[in-house]
Parts: sequence; C-alpha cells; structure tokens
Amino acid sequence: MAGMATVGTPDPNSGWLADDELEAIRRRLPLIYVEAVPVRVDGLGRVTEVGLLLRASEGELTRTIVSGRVMHGETIREALFRHLEKDLGPMAFPQLPASPVPFTVAEYFPWPTEGGYLDTRQHAVALAFVVPVTGTCEPRQDALELTWLRPAEAVSDEITADMEGGRGALVKAALASVGALA
Amino acid sequence: MAGMATVGTPDPNSGWLADDELEAIRRRLPLIYVEAVPVRVDGLGRVTEVGLLLRASEGELTRTIVSGRVMHGETIREALFRHLEKDLGPMAFPQLPASPVPFTVAEYFPWPTEGGYLDTRQHAVALAFVVPVTGTCEPRQDALELTWLRPAEAVSDEITADMEGGRGALVKAALASVGALA
Amino acid sequence: MAGMATVGTPDPNSGWLADDELEAIRRRLPLIYVEAVPVRVDGLGRVTEVGLLLRASEGELTRTIVSGRVMHGETIREALFRHLEKDLGPMAFPQLPASPVPFTVAEYFPWPTEGGYLDTRQHAVALAFVVPVTGTCEPRQDALELTWLRPAEAVSDEITADMEGGRGALVKAALASVGALA
Amino acid sequence: MAGMATVGTPDPNSGWLADDELEAIRRRLPLIYVEAVPVRVDGLGRVTEVGLLLRASEGELTRTIVSGRVMHGETIREALFRHLEKDLGPMAFPQLPASPVPFTVAEYFPWPTEGGYLDTRQHAVALAFVVPVTGTCEPRQDALELTWLRPAEAVSDEITADMEGGRGALVKAALASVGALA
Repeated sequence: MAGMATVGTPDPNSGWLADDELEAIRRRLPLIYVEAVPVRVDGLGRVTEVGLLLRASEGELTRTIVSGRVMHGETIREALFRHLEKDLGPMAFPQLPASPVPFTVAEYFPWPTEGGYLDTRQHAVALAFVVPVTGTCEPRQDALELTWLRPAEAVSDEITADMEGGRGALVKAALASVGALA
Repeated sequence: MAGMATVGTPDPNSGWLADDELEAIRRRLPLIYVEAVPVRVDGLGRVTEVGLLLRASEGELTRTIVSGRVMHGETIREALFRHLEKDLGPMAFPQLPASPVPFTVAEYFPWPTEGGYLDTRQHAVALAFVVPVTGTCEPRQDALELTWLRPAEAVSDEITADMEGGRGALVKAALASVGALA
Repeated sequence: MAGMATVGTPDPNSGWLADDELEAIRRRLPLIYVEAVPVRVDGLGRVTEVGLLLRASEGELTRTIVSGRVMHGETIREALFRHLEKDLGPMAFPQLPASPVPFTVAEYFPWPTEGGYLDTRQHAVALAFVVPVTGTCEPRQDALELTWLRPAEAVSDEITADMEGGRGALVKAALASVGALA
Repeated sequence: MAGMATVGTPDPNSGWLADDELEAIRRRLPLIYVEAVPVRVDGLGRVTEVGLLLRASEGELTRTIVSGRVMHGETIREALFRHLEKDLGPMAFPQLPASPVPFTVAEYFPWPTEGGYLDTRQHAVALAFVVPVTGTCEPRQDALELTWLRPAEAVSDEITADMEGGRGALVKAALASVGALA
C-alpha cells in the first residue's frame, strides 16, 4: 500500500495550475485539503452508518473517504461541497456543517511520522469533517463503490488496515467526535 | 427583567417530580438543561438567520431560545428533540447535530456571577447547541412568535439586552461557533 | 464488572445532601458530573502519556479516570479542580482548559444502552476533559496507584476491558480529540 | 487600513522560497497559516487577559495577534511554537493546546468577502488557537508592544476597529470559545 498512499483523488481542476507547476510547488509548500467522512444519521442525529469509498488503484483495492484540494479563491465550504459532489454524485444531498471547525486536522507528510498520516506526493494539511448525506450516492468512475458500514465495522482492524494513507485513524477520530466509537 | 430570568419554559412533564419536590431539589442540586439556538442555513451550511422566541411574561416582552430540562432516563438528544418540538412545533424538522459536544456550556446561577448567566429559580448547567431547522415553526402558546433575524441583528445591543438570563452572550457564542459573528 | 460500575468516587461532601436524600434523587433526576483524563504533554503540547487510576473494589481491580459530582453553587471548573486534587493529590498541578467545552459528553445510565456507559447507581451526564498535569501525582487512599501509559497502551483491549462503566471508550475519545489515537 | 491588511508578519524563513516565487504562488494557491491569541489564565484556567500586538506600519498603528505561515515539512504545532517565539520572545512559555483542533478557521481573501477577513497579499487559510502564556513577553522589533487587555476591553469597538484584516471578529470568536465573551 505504501506506494499508493495519496491524499484524495485526481483533480479535474488542477488545470488552474499546470501539472509540472503543481509538482514543483508540492515539494515546497504544504497544500490545504478538505476531507469528509460521509455518514447516515437517524432522526435524532445519531450516526448509524459510515460510507467508505472502495477504489482499485494499481491492482490493489483500497478504501478511502472524500478528499480533495482547496483551490485559490475557494472557501472551505465550497471545496467541501465540490469534492462531495465529485466523489458521491449530484444526488447525495450532503448536509454541510454549520460550524467551520473540523473534528480534526490531519497532517499528511511524504515520509513516515508519529502522526501516522502519509501522502507520498506531498505535505498536505487536511481539515476533516463528518458530513451526513441524505440522498443517493453514485460514486464517480474511479471509485468502484461506496460501502455503508456500521460504526463498529468501520473501525475494525480488517477495514482500517485497508485505508489509504493512515485514514483508519481518521475514521476512528470521526466516530469518536460523534460519540459513536465503542 | 431580573425577576423573570428563568431557564427555559414551564415543563409539562415536571409531574415526573411533584412541584414541591422539584422546588426542594432546586435549592440543593444543579439541574441539567439543553438549549438550542434555531438557525436557517443555506445550501453550503452557512447560517443565514437566527430564530429567537418572543415571550410575554409578567407584562414584559423578553426574547429567549429553546431551553428545557433533561429528564431521568432521557438522553441529551431526546431532550433536545423534545424541547425543540415543544417550543417550535411538530413541523420544524430540526437537524440534530451528529456530535454530542455543545458549542458551549452555560452555567446559570440564582445569584449574579462573572459568567453572567442568571436563573433566579436554580443552578442549571446547560449544554447549548446550534440547530438548523428546515420546516415551518409554530411556537407554542406561551411564546408570541418566533422571529428570524440576520446574524448581525441578532447580536445587536438592542436585541441582546432583551434576552432572558444573559442569553445574549449565548447567541453571540453560538454565532461565533459557526463563523457568523462579525 | 457489572456490579461495580460506578461514576467516580465516594464524595466527602455528599453531606451537602443526606445519603438517603441523594439516594432518592438519584432515581428521579440525572446528576451532573465532571470527568478528567490526566495526561502528560511535551513542550509542543503533544500527549505523551495517559494517567489511569487503579482501584481495588469488592475484590476486583479496575481502572478509572478522575470523576465526580458537581455541587450546587459550584462551577464546572471548580468541580474539576476539586476532583483532580482529591484524586491526584495537591501537587499534581493540573492545567485546566481555557475552554469550558468538553471533548465529549458521556451519558451514564443504570441500564445497558447503545451509548455503552453504565453506572448502576444513577443516570449521570458527565462533561469530560483532557487535563495536562505537570506535577507529582499521589492518588488518595482508595486508589492503589496512578499508572502512566503511552497512548497506544491506554487504548489496548487489555486495558480498556478493565475500565469501569465503559470508560475505555472515553479514553479512546479523549485521545482521538488530541490527535493521539492511532 | 485596507492597504495594510496582511496576514501575520514578514517571515524571515521565506528564503525557503525566493520572494518572487512566493509572490507567484500567492496568486495561485491558498497558503496555510497558524494564528494564536495569547491569553493569561488564572488557576482554574479562566482567561483573565488577552494579549494584542501593537504595530506601526506605514505610519499607522494597528493591532494584531500572533500569525504566520506553516512551512513545508513542519507540523502545525511546530509552526505555532515558532511563531509564538518569534512574536513574543523566547521567555513567553506558551502552553500549546493538547488538541490540534482550532477554535475557528479564518479564511483570508485578497478581496472583500462575507466572512470579513482580508489579506491584500493572498488567499490564506488560518487555523486559530487560544494559547495561554505563562512567562514574560518581549515582542520582537517590528511590534511596538504587547498590550494585555481584559476580555471586555479587547472586544470593544475601539479596539476591534484597529485590528488588521478583520481580526476583531477573530478575537471575539476566541473569547466566545473560552466562555469569556460577555
């Protein structure tokens, strides 16, 4: 898995920067990302299910969450909405949080660190949110499917070991923040 | 206003404790409350309006938010839902937060304190939440109306001065927590 | 373990209420508690160790954290300080948080619930904080010792299974809130 | 004030990127910043004073807080510590938070926005923290002094109007997050 640990998904808008420019910057500056753990909630707001994206990459299956870069001129909320739509489709109807404060800040480095988050491409600082989705999710083409798991399943060793870049810890922290980590 | 500063609204279920029993306990133990600042949000989750309840009490008009006691055996979420329904009606469709962590903890004492929250009846510890409502609000009988205000209006001196028990500070803290306090 | 799951420690001040009065109230009203997970931090504020209290109770060894009731007229901060001093001794020098917002709210019921927190004596709502301590801890008499564990040890199955009232989940949530849950 | 609204202070390490490179990047990518509101706390953790930096810039006096860029390869905590030391001196002894979650995320744009934060140089996303300092502060050369104000003074119209880039709202949000906004 090491070779494929990446933050998020190929960005169709990266044309805002030419690929080689972005490549050069990635070695010089931390990039800012947003990440979202999609959840289903019941009528009282309790998280009942967690949505994980399954992806085939270089012949391996890995799991991840919604993740992507914040563009110049774009707000955190706009970036979050854009990446949710890109990864879950236009009918997911995410409920973006009223508060701009993430449940955690995940720091990805291109080398192993104590924090545990790894992105071989870059140093990225990700603001991570839990986002209830109320509609129908249709993961876009490079994701094979979105799997809904009960909280206890989502944090099982079997699932977290498959997650890209150390995001198993992120899913645990997401569930802890909503009181759903047993 | 001093004489009427109270946490929340008369509780129809206080029959779970006889009135004189509750009265006696109020002088001996802190009670636990939930409070909710109702808001309207736009498609990106930004707070656009704040809902304040207008109430006539002993000949004075005061403003307040949703507030009430947590009963024995009841979860915080259940109490929050019950009081939202009682104060805003059954068609308000509140979106309860996925996280059980309040934006602040307001401590009401029956005497003036540095914290600034006052409840002449009791010592109450209130867990306060910002709750988006998506439906139609019909405040119940002892509230004259629910007024929707823009964030800047809701924290104006004119409005906060009218709020029961020092809740002007609570509304400011609510808006600060969602990044809407200018 | 079921029979001995309790919130916190015998309260020397319970004389503020006679024992039988408190007993009666416990069946009628939720009580409000504060809980603290003591930690050691390094110069950058990172949690390096977690302190768990070891206690012998009815012939069994269990682990717990700092926990106790909020008294009438007492602020959350005062209660937190009082219980930290009672459980860790006068030389622990805890750094109370600037923010009154807990990392989680743990709801203990006298019957099993989905939330997982159990207190056979009562319904208690606990505001839980991570508290760095900088001095020397001398646990009071009914605790055998305070054990400092690395975060990964503190959340191991071996340790969390021994914790009173489901507090293993609370320690996990505490570490998740400080970015130290791997 | 418009012309001088800037995020933070000249960065001696900007040599990590040549000035013209940084200039080019600033028009293409959001930069990530950390900001700290220095406070004094009492023995129970309550905020008693807020520290604001006074600075002379282009003939005007403005007030600001600790602020600066996160470098490639640097953690949020390291950046926070570095900028606190740079702005407050080596004897300030800041207590960095155990939690990596900011009290708010301030989004600075080079054009006026609803959010209200302005930085004429760039789009910057700032993670903002309240940081108790326990030692002696000696602001570095381009700051005239560090002024300690009571919370009520710090959020007065007189003070907030002088703050760079809309940071008056940030100070209000900081105080709201610690329950000290009246």
